[in-house]
Amino acid sequence: MEVISTQTNGSAIIMNYSHHNGNSDHRNGGATAHDHDNGRKLLGNSNSIKPGWFSEFSALWPGEAFSLKIENLLFQGKSDYQDVMLFESATYGKVLTLDGAIQHTENGGFPYTEMIVHLPLGSIPKPKKVLIIGGGIGFTLFEVLRYPTVEKIDIVEIDDVVVDVSRKFFPYLAANFNDPRVTLVLGDGAAFVKAAQAGYYDAIIVDSSDPIGPAKDLFERPFFEAVAKALRPGGVVCTQAESIWLHMHIIKQIIANCRQVFKGSVNYAWTTVPTYPTGVIGYMLCSTEGPEVDFKNPVNAIDKLDETHVNSKLGPLKFYNTDIHKSAFILPSFAKNLTES
Amino acid sequence: MEVISTQTNGSAIIMNYSHHNGNSDHRNGGATAHDHDNGRKLLGNSNSIKPGWFSEFSALWPGEAFSLKIENLLFQGKSDYQDVMLFESATYGKVLTLDGAIQHTENGGFPYTEMIVHLPLGSIPKPKKVLIIGGGIGFTLFEVLRYPTVEKIDIVEIDDVVVDVSRKFFPYLAANFNDPRVTLVLGDGAAFVKAAQAGYYDAIIVDSSDPIGPAKDLFERPFFEAVAKALRPGGVVCTQAESIWLHMHIIKQIIANCRQVFKGSVNYAWTTVPTYPTGVIGYMLCSTEGPEVDFKNPVNAIDKLDETHVNSKLGPLKFYNTDIHKSAFILPSFAKNLTES
Repeated sequence: MEVISTQTNGSAIIMNYSHHNGNSDHRNGGATAHDHDNGRKLLGNSNSIKPGWFSEFSALWPGEAFSLKIENLLFQGKSDYQDVMLFESATYGKVLTLDGAIQHTENGGFPYTEMIVHLPLGSIPKPKKVLIIGGGIGFTLFEVLRYPTVEKIDIVEIDDVVVDVSRKFFPYLAANFNDPRVTLVLGDGAAFVKAAQAGYYDAIIVDSSDPIGPAKDLFERPFFEAVAKALRPGGVVCTQAESIWLHMHIIKQIIANCRQVFKGSVNYAWTTVPTYPTGVIGYMLCSTEGPEVDFKNPVNAIDKLDETHVNSKLGPLKFYNTDIHKSAFILPSFAKNLTES
Repeated sequence: MEVISTQTNGSAIIMNYSHHNGNSDHRNGGATAHDHDNGRKLLGNSNSIKPGWFSEFSALWPGEAFSLKIENLLFQGKSDYQDVMLFESATYGKVLTLDGAIQHTENGGFPYTEMIVHLPLGSIPKPKKVLIIGGGIGFTLFEVLRYPTVEKIDIVEIDDVVVDVSRKFFPYLAANFNDPRVTLVLGDGAAFVKAAQAGYYDAIIVDSSDPIGPAKDLFERPFFEAVAKALRPGGVVCTQAESIWLHMHIIKQIIANCRQVFKGSVNYAWTTVPTYPTGVIGYMLCSTEGPEVDFKNPVNAIDKLDETHVNSKLGPLKFYNTDIHKSAFILPSFAKNLTES
């Protein structure tokens, strides 16, 4: 594994990343669950909830909140970018939150991860070079590694605290950072893409948080332009693209941007995630000019590949299958009308 | 409109239902939002939440809870069967809860209602006689009335307080109880079906709450046997059938029961509902022996009917379309494995 830190001008330098031997490079000292003397409230920005429960209040979904019972608070810290919290929930396994928003749950987050990876990689033959932006906890990488054709995976996480949490609490995920095909980059994803070699990647997966906070740039047009440039002809991108119930105005803007930038195909897909607001999440799936990509008819569906691979140490797919892939592009009427207009 | 009250032996008597002129027949006196002196807590069984918010705690989904901000508490009462509450939420319009569980939200419940009606009625040609069990608030009836071929709709609601809430707070729904095709029955749905004329209905829609409380019988085999008997050959039933994320053991039991009872086809479908636990809900769709019913390929999809009808006073469909209908039967791998085993 290489670990690289990028500066925002796009140049990259190798960093001495030695957290595991005790020399943490946390910019704020590597806050942990034991750092309660910093005066932060136990539950981040959850300003009034049932004791012992996490509640997900946000300006992005005013008037509603999902709550989970906390069995054990495993980590809480403030990085240079965001509040990071990990807890063991009563029913969904470990839960990662960033700035008070649930990013992943071990037992309920797999639809999000399987779909953000297999929708794009299942739509092109023999993906070799893949870039993951965000996803520093490692779930996305885990799914990308199912593809035997993949030779090179760059993963760019802006927040080293997230990677630290993975190393400490998800060793089965962090182990994949050591895979010889993997280069972990600690830095700004937008800058990394801008500096990337033109036409290099077969697929780019943007596993971002919501468009407030550090992921804001990843929803804007200059970023999409850089992504298009970094992809080979007929290359594909899949970005996290919010909930049709909550953020149709954001989605419409993303679609409009993508239609201007990507000259191949532009599609919106969605899936269900039990622990996300409104229970769904969307994805933008776009391809660059070149060999045609029909996202709605997968050519490389991982559930159809050699079963010995699917049943490898990664375990079988739990959510994704070819029919689920196809149905992800079928929208309810209200959303269809809005995304097509 | 007829209003009929059934006794549990299945015989039916016409009841003097005159709540609207002030002579309430509420068995508990028709509690309203102003009846705060009865000592009930403002928020039903929500035992510790943010002030001014409703939280949906339940033994059916331990360790998680969805919460909605209350703008205005409109009604709260305890019927003979359950706690009934209606509030104006900040973002989803009016919200009906029974025993502390969200049954319907005006702005988020329509996927549930459209699908529980159009999955069965879209799968048979020219439905004429339809029975709705539960659904006394009127949303389900509203959707059934889209079909120009329907001549007779019986709707059996066990809880007259629910119907009262409809009359007072959803007059646009309650008005449909006066449609000449509609007979509203206040009584026990299981007993009504048992007493129904054999082979009478084209379709039966079981719009029930969860299998604890008054809806318990509606998930058990004797009820399904009565439903099968009340349906014509090749008739169809659609029942609310819980969440694949929470209640696979219940779903497997329902499927096993239905496979023994229904000699036509037996299918599980699901859809997303932003205000239900885990964001999804399922349906059992079964047909009796007779003309074949292929639920996965609708023959009577309402979105393909005469647009002047679809764009009637009911307004256009917001969620349902033919492709959504077909995709409702596509399950994620973990659920597919469990429902097929």
